[in-house]
Amino acid sequence: MTTTLGELAVRYGCTVQGDPDVPISRVGTLLNAAGEAISFLANPAYRKQLADTSAAAVILSPEDAAQCPVSCLITDNPYALYARVAADLNPSSEAPPGIDDSAVVGADTEIAAGVCISAQVCIGADVRLGQGVFIGPGCVVGDRCELGAGTRLNANVTLCADTRIGARGLLHAGAVLGADGFGIARDGDRWIKVPQLGGVRLGDDVEVGANTAIDRGAIEDTVIGDGVKLDNQVQVGHNVRIGEHTVIAGCVAIAGSATIGKRCMIGGAAAIVGHIELGDDVVVNAFTFVSHSLMHAGVYSGAMPVEQASRWRRNAAHLRHLDKLAKKVQLLEKKLAEIETAGSAGEKDKS
Amino acid sequence: MTTTLGELAVRYGCTVQGDPDVPISRVGTLLNAAGEAISFLANPAYRKQLADTSAAAVILSPEDAAQCPVSCLITDNPYALYARVAADLNPSSEAPPGIDDSAVVGADTEIAAGVCISAQVCIGADVRLGQGVFIGPGCVVGDRCELGAGTRLNANVTLCADTRIGARGLLHAGAVLGADGFGIARDGDRWIKVPQLGGVRLGDDVEVGANTAIDRGAIEDTVIGDGVKLDNQVQVGHNVRIGEHTVIAGCVAIAGSATIGKRCMIGGAAAIVGHIELGDDVVVNAFTFVSHSLMHAGVYSGAMPVEQASRWRRNAAHLRHLDKLAKKVQLLEKKLAEIETAGSAGEKDKS
Amino acid sequence: MTTTLGELAVRYGCTVQGDPDVPISRVGTLLNAAGEAISFLANPAYRKQLADTSAAAVILSPEDAAQCPVSCLITDNPYALYARVAADLNPSSEAPPGIDDSAVVGADTEIAAGVCISAQVCIGADVRLGQGVFIGPGCVVGDRCELGAGTRLNANVTLCADTRIGARGLLHAGAVLGADGFGIARDGDRWIKVPQLGGVRLGDDVEVGANTAIDRGAIEDTVIGDGVKLDNQVQVGHNVRIGEHTVIAGCVAIAGSATIGKRCMIGGAAAIVGHIELGDDVVVNAFTFVSHSLMHAGVYSGAMPVEQASRWRRNAAHLRHLDKLAKKVQLLEKKLAEIETAGSAGEKDKS
Repeated sequence: MTTTLGELAVRYGCTVQGDPDVPISRVGTLLNAAGEAISFLANPAYRKQLADTSAAAVILSPEDAAQCPVSCLITDNPYALYARVAADLNPSSEAPPGIDDSAVVGADTEIAAGVCISAQVCIGADVRLGQGVFIGPGCVVGDRCELGAGTRLNANVTLCADTRIGARGLLHAGAVLGADGFGIARDGDRWIKVPQLGGVRLGDDVEVGANTAIDRGAIEDTVIGDGVKLDNQVQVGHNVRIGEHTVIAGCVAIAGSATIGKRCMIGGAAAIVGHIELGDDVVVNAFTFVSHSLMHAGVYSGAMPVEQASRWRRNAAHLRHLDKLAKKVQLLEKKLAEIETAGSAGEKDKS
Repeated sequence: MTTTLGELAVRYGCTVQGDPDVPISRVGTLLNAAGEAISFLANPAYRKQLADTSAAAVILSPEDAAQCPVSCLITDNPYALYARVAADLNPSSEAPPGIDDSAVVGADTEIAAGVCISAQVCIGADVRLGQGVFIGPGCVVGDRCELGAGTRLNANVTLCADTRIGARGLLHAGAVLGADGFGIARDGDRWIKVPQLGGVRLGDDVEVGANTAIDRGAIEDTVIGDGVKLDNQVQVGHNVRIGEHTVIAGCVAIAGSATIGKRCMIGGAAAIVGHIELGDDVVVNAFTFVSHSLMHAGVYSGAMPVEQASRWRRNAAHLRHLDKLAKKVQLLEKKLAEIETAGSAGEKDKS
Repeated sequence: MTTTLGELAVRYGCTVQGDPDVPISRVGTLLNAAGEAISFLANPAYRKQLADTSAAAVILSPEDAAQCPVSCLITDNPYALYARVAADLNPSSEAPPGIDDSAVVGADTEIAAGVCISAQVCIGADVRLGQGVFIGPGCVVGDRCELGAGTRLNANVTLCADTRIGARGLLHAGAVLGADGFGIARDGDRWIKVPQLGGVRLGDDVEVGANTAIDRGAIEDTVIGDGVKLDNQVQVGHNVRIGEHTVIAGCVAIAGSATIGKRCMIGGAAAIVGHIELGDDVVVNAFTFVSHSLMHAGVYSGAMPVEQASRWRRNAAHLRHLDKLAKKVQLLEKKLAEIETAGSAGEKDKS
């Protein structure tokens, strides 16, 4: 698809600086874009690449426009505009509807118009697939699952029985929804399994990354709200509830029965213990261990700073004696106070 | 299935408080149970929900019985009893035995009575499947694997060659057993592969979570004891040995050749380095990094507390200078001791 | 295969101590080797097992030779030599070339000589498979993928469209290459998807562990250099670049657009934030959070030490008040300086 900078400006109601007739046919990075490629500047870390860009045009914010050596589209949210333009220039190719000969589909399954079921797929009984659903190769869809219109399972995705997904869901390869939660009850020296009887329920516009797992609920459902985006290798325990438009980066572990509010942002490799609550608009930085509820919106951290190993070893040794160090300081304060008192008494004495 | 509170009390040898004829047909949470649902109270965090429950009955401990507004079953271990009752009320539907037309089964494979092999399965040669084994859709079972009676692979599970599983195993979707361990030997600036010649051996009653990986041994087997329960996305390196009835929560990483004792509990997202040993009954809290052997039973921790990011930044800055801080305190102590000595000398002087 | 110690010494140009005619037919551990098994001693932690070994022979370094009770092969790099000998003694059985009847292969796909495509495989269109490529059961290979000669996908591996792998690659079960990167742009209270248009490119001799995910690039490719070894459950974000011969242990999370140099070693469960750079020969210890670029070769750490939980709790409490503690020490220093000044003034006074 080819368009012009001017057409994009009209479509998205933003300002052109430079030549509106510049042809645009693809996207590129500031560093390597060439020919008819449009680039963008959103992360200030890349501002230094702007001066030398060979892009046909750049999408950027008003404050960067003056430094732009080529034509540009000016907007308050360059990254979101870039996302829209990139989608325009790269329309996703629709899979042709139909069921591959190698696929196996269970009884009483309803398949709406435009559904594509790829090779090596296994679909259970009583499943409902909405209009335009795409089931990629190797996927397994268990009994009684429901997939809303336009939802895509890319490849080797597993939906266990009773998983329900809204419209326009996007599940990447290796994702597992609806496996049993980790419900075990101690019984003397052994553990017995607690039946996991709930399901998994995803709202509309939810994205689930590669090899991410969302467990089924123990009694009620595990619930993921509309617009939630989960990156790869995220673990979501049973009975977790994630509010609308919350985003969770890769390798985050969320233990069972945690409740996460709306519009939260959880950084990569963070971990959240079970049975706690995060309020709306809570931001947790990467590699942070959330051990208690955080009810107030705000940014939270807990990761250790990295250092040269030799220096770290010296500092870490003191970590194990912080309590002692604090007590030493307390004692010093007490003694010093006594000396000061004695001193001022002495002063008084002299006077 | 419908029963009564009285029947459950007889079956499990516990006490009814209230009406033994209350019909019970399903389970529910304290908050949402209604009609013929039985609930339970095991975690004190939910005690406040007891007063308002609409459950037909509640399973709880003697100390909570007085506060229960409805009929109840009294037991010292409410969670274990709940697990048993929930299993009674929700008998798992047995898959009909047989081999799906789409499955591929290798030569010299022994298939006992009652085995179900689902669609899109690939089973290698010289495999032995015990009575009632269930192989879910999309699973791959490599050559020479052995699965004990009643073991279930849910969907898209991979057993590499030479994996042996005891009776009543339960493997969730995406689990991978028997992939090569991370054996590489430095050779100048490069790395060469160390052949991984051992297998994986699981005892009876082992549960393996979704997308969990257990590597084959380098020379001897990786060994998981009877009754071990592994949650999702756990990584078990080559030659690891895990003792009986140990439970390991989600996203735990266990490096090669670590040995973990019996009845241990490892919290979520913890990590255990290679070639160390954890004794029996060791409890490691979540997000803890175990860098050395822990031979004595007990509870161990190492996670950083989470804080508001601004406050954390101030505190973390000092972490990098703890050694200096400790030296300052030492110097202060020394100086103060000198002052005190001088002071008492002065005192003596005066006297 | 059976050989003798002397033959191995000739083949690898190293020294025999003892009987060169000892027959060698398999490998074993120092502890359990018997009969015709050769063992090795590379990790000093196992030195104590040498005295009692029943191995036919041991591969070890010159400094350990004197203590060896049996015949031995002496080399400066025992682990690398062991790797070669183990590979000699255990030649991998080649899968017979051919395409299983159950496999589905797309149009215009080029399949070189010696390729094996196993059961339940789905291969897309315009794919190129080099000589001797092995596609294990359940694998999915998307459109336009390219696999170099001798590359193996073990089982249930997913290659999304446009993934290119060099020669002799080894991908373990459940690995996912080319899923969309986590590209989302904030748009008011919601997030919109940023199209992920790049691919994934792996060099030669790359190993990818079970359930590891490598995302496709946003605009350009995600690039993994020659000889890189990734363990299980590693997450590699979009646009990451990993230099040649770098090795990364299990459960490491690498956020988008991070650049990692050559010959780096990243310990298990470490995490690396996005848009930063690690220079060549950087070693990051396990469970370390790398929050900023590390340009200089060296060893870096950041993990907290594990302790008994009760003791940890006391120390951790002070972590939250380190800033206060440091200020107290500063104040003590100031006061003490004043006292010393006053004291010496007093001394002067007296004199």
